[in-house]
Amino acid sequence: MRGVKRGTTSTEDRRNTRPLIGLTQGDPAGIGPELCLGMLVDRAVLRRCIPVVFGDAALLDRVAAASGLPRPRRILALGEWRRVQPHTPVVVDLQCVKGGRLRQGRISAAAGWAAHRCIAVATEEALAGRIAGMATAPIHKESLRLGGIPYPGHTELLAALTRTKRYCMMMMSDRLSTALVTTHTALANVPGLLTAKRIQEVIELAADALSRVRGRPPRLVVCALNPHAGEHGLMGDEEQRSIEPAIRAARKRGIAVEGPLPPDTAFLPERIEHTDAYVCMYHDQGLIPFKMLAFETGINVTLGLPIVRTSPDHGTAFDIAWTGRAKTESMRQAVLYAAKLAVLRDPS
Amino acid sequence: MRGVKRGTTSTEDRRNTRPLIGLTQGDPAGIGPELCLGMLVDRAVLRRCIPVVFGDAALLDRVAAASGLPRPRRILALGEWRRVQPHTPVVVDLQCVKGGRLRQGRISAAAGWAAHRCIAVATEEALAGRIAGMATAPIHKESLRLGGIPYPGHTELLAALTRTKRYCMMMMSDRLSTALVTTHTALANVPGLLTAKRIQEVIELAADALSRVRGRPPRLVVCALNPHAGEHGLMGDEEQRSIEPAIRAARKRGIAVEGPLPPDTAFLPERIEHTDAYVCMYHDQGLIPFKMLAFETGINVTLGLPIVRTSPDHGTAFDIAWTGRAKTESMRQAVLYAAKLAVLRDPS
Repeated sequence: MRGVKRGTTSTEDRRNTRPLIGLTQGDPAGIGPELCLGMLVDRAVLRRCIPVVFGDAALLDRVAAASGLPRPRRILALGEWRRVQPHTPVVVDLQCVKGGRLRQGRISAAAGWAAHRCIAVATEEALAGRIAGMATAPIHKESLRLGGIPYPGHTELLAALTRTKRYCMMMMSDRLSTALVTTHTALANVPGLLTAKRIQEVIELAADALSRVRGRPPRLVVCALNPHAGEHGLMGDEEQRSIEPAIRAARKRGIAVEGPLPPDTAFLPERIEHTDAYVCMYHDQGLIPFKMLAFETGINVTLGLPIVRTSPDHGTAFDIAWTGRAKTESMRQAVLYAAKLAVLRDPS
Repeated sequence: MRGVKRGTTSTEDRRNTRPLIGLTQGDPAGIGPELCLGMLVDRAVLRRCIPVVFGDAALLDRVAAASGLPRPRRILALGEWRRVQPHTPVVVDLQCVKGGRLRQGRISAAAGWAAHRCIAVATEEALAGRIAGMATAPIHKESLRLGGIPYPGHTELLAALTRTKRYCMMMMSDRLSTALVTTHTALANVPGLLTAKRIQEVIELAADALSRVRGRPPRLVVCALNPHAGEHGLMGDEEQRSIEPAIRAARKRGIAVEGPLPPDTAFLPERIEHTDAYVCMYHDQGLIPFKMLAFETGINVTLGLPIVRTSPDHGTAFDIAWTGRAKTESMRQAVLYAAKLAVLRDPS
């Protein structure tokens, strides 16, 4: 992190040490806008950071009216924001939602394009150090695709925007954290994607992140791919070919890592308690146990990026969008974690 | 079930309606023998059934001495058992452990052969109706293989012994039950094994079993194979090609079944509460959530066999074998479930 520039904030409180955290409004037809509105007035959030929402002010007004949430108090155009960077909660109005056509809970190219625009701008602001990190509200892949943005999720999109090659998705919560070797791909593709190099990369990314969060060397567990960890090659050999070599290499670098463990007993309560993070071979191996234990309180972090980025662990929830019924806990945790990670990266 | 024959038990209490449940001793080097010894004197078990242990009497004596458990009170040779079928707890001595060479916690051909012999005999007794069902203590696949028995687990072995083509493994507990479309195979093989016919078969086997246990039409959930259920084909098409057609066919037969659901949100607590059983595409999709919720209390049932068969959900635990430290709860549940399923099959 290049650190938040404060040189130009002459009219702001210079003693304010809370980091500026960017919030992207997500798919405008989903629950993202109301979650962002909620964070602008959330006490827990305001104690730990200053939320800066990247969105569409007119859309946010519509959602505020529909869902009974307070309208944003301070709105700046992008150029204005870049000049001032105020130390109060603010909406940066990107005017990205075209016309009044957009409807609640509907997939559309306009929604996908708007969602992408918010992420692209927030990423730029984070790379330039004008925000200390970002928390992204949920997007809808189908709208994104219609909008001409060919990425299966935030993780891959942010890697492309920041030109990062070495990254992974990790789910974090107080009880359980799981980092993924493969993410948004068909299960049939998973075995072919498991190289020792990639697995070692994810072990190292997870070890690095957890050592900052915990302030000590973390204890990691690596899951096997196959049932019973392949039982000495009787059921698949990815353990011997890729996973064990990666574990040996990580141990040589001083990382405390156990595995490959049979996936079905890796997540027994007692082991979870003594493990700081799991390295999982595919999406659902990590996300089934994670969501069982931490749904709506857990968050998603992209490790390896040059910026801090978190998000809630749920989707756009089109069925309840703009009603004010969306639960805010996971978004709150995402913003708080972004603030925490930003401070750990750049303690000045 | 052909019903337990009682015609020859003239010296036994004819009014005794508890079913005879066979227990196989499992791998003799593991915790199976001490679990069986424990069941012979277990109050909860004795209230609901009469345990008949198929094992090696000399080995059971050694384990009783080593682990501080009481020695079996009544031992019969196989021929004797077949003539009498007593209505008291009994060990049927198959004299299957050769010599005194066998050691605690060691993989060996002798152990594998002995484990197989107990299963083969108990299966014969169940097919002949001399026992009402069987609960099998854990075996070790490596010993089995060394002993010349080329099956990856009980499920496949029992299917072969009973010449059953249409069967599946199901994990059952009070909180969660999961039936598996594929079981002991490398993850790379899973997508190729998912035919609509096989998935429909497992849906029907699960619906049949649960309707007996619950006494009403059960509610089933079918998991997708791919992350986010493939997101309309963006990440894999097994959902459209096999899973959805199987669900439609099952619904036509009047089965209440939802799916294919994204695997990571299928197991949220609220949904588990309203689901009688899950149909899972691969071993760990079903066993990760199952063991998180029901380890050491859940059991394994083979559906589709002409006999009742259950087992505990843990392994041979070589590290603590013959010490008396093995937890008995899952074995107890396996025996109790076998008794329950036997009565449901053959209420006379």
